[in-house]
Amino acid sequence: MTEKQDLRALCAGRPVAIVGAGLVGAGWAIVFARAGLSVKMFDANADITRKAVPLIASQLAGLRRHGLIDEDPAAVLARITPVATLAEAVDGAAYVQESVLERVDVKRRLMEDLDALLAPDAIVGSSTSGIPGSDFALGLSISPRVLIAHPVNPPYLVPVVELVPSPETSPATAAFADALMRAVGQTVVHVRKEVEGFVLNRLQAVLLREAWALVQDGVASCEDIDKTIRDGLGWRWSFMGPFETIDLNAPGGVADYAVRLGPLYQRIARAGSHESPWDAALIGQVEAQRREHLSHADLESRRAWRDERLMEFAAARRREQTPG
Amino acid sequence: MTEKQDLRALCAGRPVAIVGAGLVGAGWAIVFARAGLSVKMFDANADITRKAVPLIASQLAGLRRHGLIDEDPAAVLARITPVATLAEAVDGAAYVQESVLERVDVKRRLMEDLDALLAPDAIVGSSTSGIPGSDFALGLSISPRVLIAHPVNPPYLVPVVELVPSPETSPATAAFADALMRAVGQTVVHVRKEVEGFVLNRLQAVLLREAWALVQDGVASCEDIDKTIRDGLGWRWSFMGPFETIDLNAPGGVADYAVRLGPLYQRIARAGSHESPWDAALIGQVEAQRREHLSHADLESRRAWRDERLMEFAAARRREQTPG
Repeated sequence: MTEKQDLRALCAGRPVAIVGAGLVGAGWAIVFARAGLSVKMFDANADITRKAVPLIASQLAGLRRHGLIDEDPAAVLARITPVATLAEAVDGAAYVQESVLERVDVKRRLMEDLDALLAPDAIVGSSTSGIPGSDFALGLSISPRVLIAHPVNPPYLVPVVELVPSPETSPATAAFADALMRAVGQTVVHVRKEVEGFVLNRLQAVLLREAWALVQDGVASCEDIDKTIRDGLGWRWSFMGPFETIDLNAPGGVADYAVRLGPLYQRIARAGSHESPWDAALIGQVEAQRREHLSHADLESRRAWRDERLMEFAAARRREQTPG
Repeated sequence: MTEKQDLRALCAGRPVAIVGAGLVGAGWAIVFARAGLSVKMFDANADITRKAVPLIASQLAGLRRHGLIDEDPAAVLARITPVATLAEAVDGAAYVQESVLERVDVKRRLMEDLDALLAPDAIVGSSTSGIPGSDFALGLSISPRVLIAHPVNPPYLVPVVELVPSPETSPATAAFADALMRAVGQTVVHVRKEVEGFVLNRLQAVLLREAWALVQDGVASCEDIDKTIRDGLGWRWSFMGPFETIDLNAPGGVADYAVRLGPLYQRIARAGSHESPWDAALIGQVEAQRREHLSHADLESRRAWRDERLMEFAAARRREQTPG
């Protein structure tokens, strides 16, 4: 939209509030603190807030090890203050990122509380991965200042954030969220209608439905489908996305590609059994195939491996984007 | 399937034949020659064969620059011999990789010619991206020795290859192709039924249909959809694939994930307008959006950029997989 703005000017020296300090909230705390902002962090469950601090410290150490933060991790951590009440968290905040439980009633109650507590110009972003603002954020005085800001986990590594306004969200709110997210280093995707799953989960959903259908129909194993993506399609998608990929894959660009391959792709989309439910038998089959490759006991260490890969990926991306 | 086999033993010192020397055939020539095999390369259009040699030389120079071949490029090129006739190309060949025009009649005629020319134990792989062997490779004496070996372009960078037997392909042929492809460094995906688009293009098809539908419905721009993948979903897919991604994304693994998110994904797959055709208006809209980011005149230089990125990606992957 506009040029990248100065972060301090944008927030006028005011802090950011993190409401809900589980994995997602803690990840957001890193995003804002890393960018130099003061962060106040609250969770209705004090135990979760307590656990978030060492979790964040360990994540910051990983970022430092991979050259993804230039500061001492302790300096970043010092900008994050756990607080005991919602009122303390949002006091003076320019922006509130809520990552509370993914339930309409919980989100609605929080919006009502924020309505009573927030400064009249504070903006609220919701981390919900699928509940549209219309379901929990309408009809309040803060409604024009609420929108969805849906991250990928963890947001301090994977930069995309989907901004989804509700019908009551003001253009100024959308513009602020766009500027803030870009200023802290996220990649903003504007979702212009409140469709279920927004953009990211819709794209993931159709690919997963087809993948599961291929297993169900006996066409390929889970492992071979994973190979098809990780040693095939995923390479280009990881730095270009699907439209640029096909734009470069036909001599005349994307329109040429559409004429050549559109009809084939339409037949495939029509013929697929990707709309049937995943029944217990199919889930059992996929689970059994995955457990051949990775036992339940090894899930946790494999997640640590994944996070190391993501940090390497982020570090390589950072090197590419830093001139000289 | 089995352990990685010695390449020379596998081919018994015999050459590999490349039939069809366009982009795909030339790419395959590099795969086999890089692995140490003698390659004979033929195209019915002598002009295409002639152009393939400098193209291969330039691609080998790029591979060398990125540390993707350890030999002098000239030594690899010296193992590729352009020949003037199909008979010369396949003379003594242990394996034939055909990458001729993507038309059933052209493929069928080639199979009949090969039937007359090939040694009785030679195996044939077809690069077709979508025509099943049943449409062109049945009822001949070589039919048990023919299968689809569908690469991603360029095959010397992106390792995945889909092996698709026809109903007449023998198990020994599938086993040989699996061993050969793995010995030359490809990643083998076994497609067990002749479904349209095999696995790779089915997965690409459903994601692209949804992406186009999101543009058509005014939900997001092409560029924002590309961002969603390249700064979001594509990161994990590029080293894990979709099944491993979701296996790690729920506390209890993939079955837990399926129970939590299966119903949402089913609603999305059902509700999508991803089955409608891409009409001229939509194609024009996507074309216009892409041309804002990249002019027609810049398509070619962006392809060179893409190939550099792919080589960097391949080099990083190679470093990861080489211990020490």
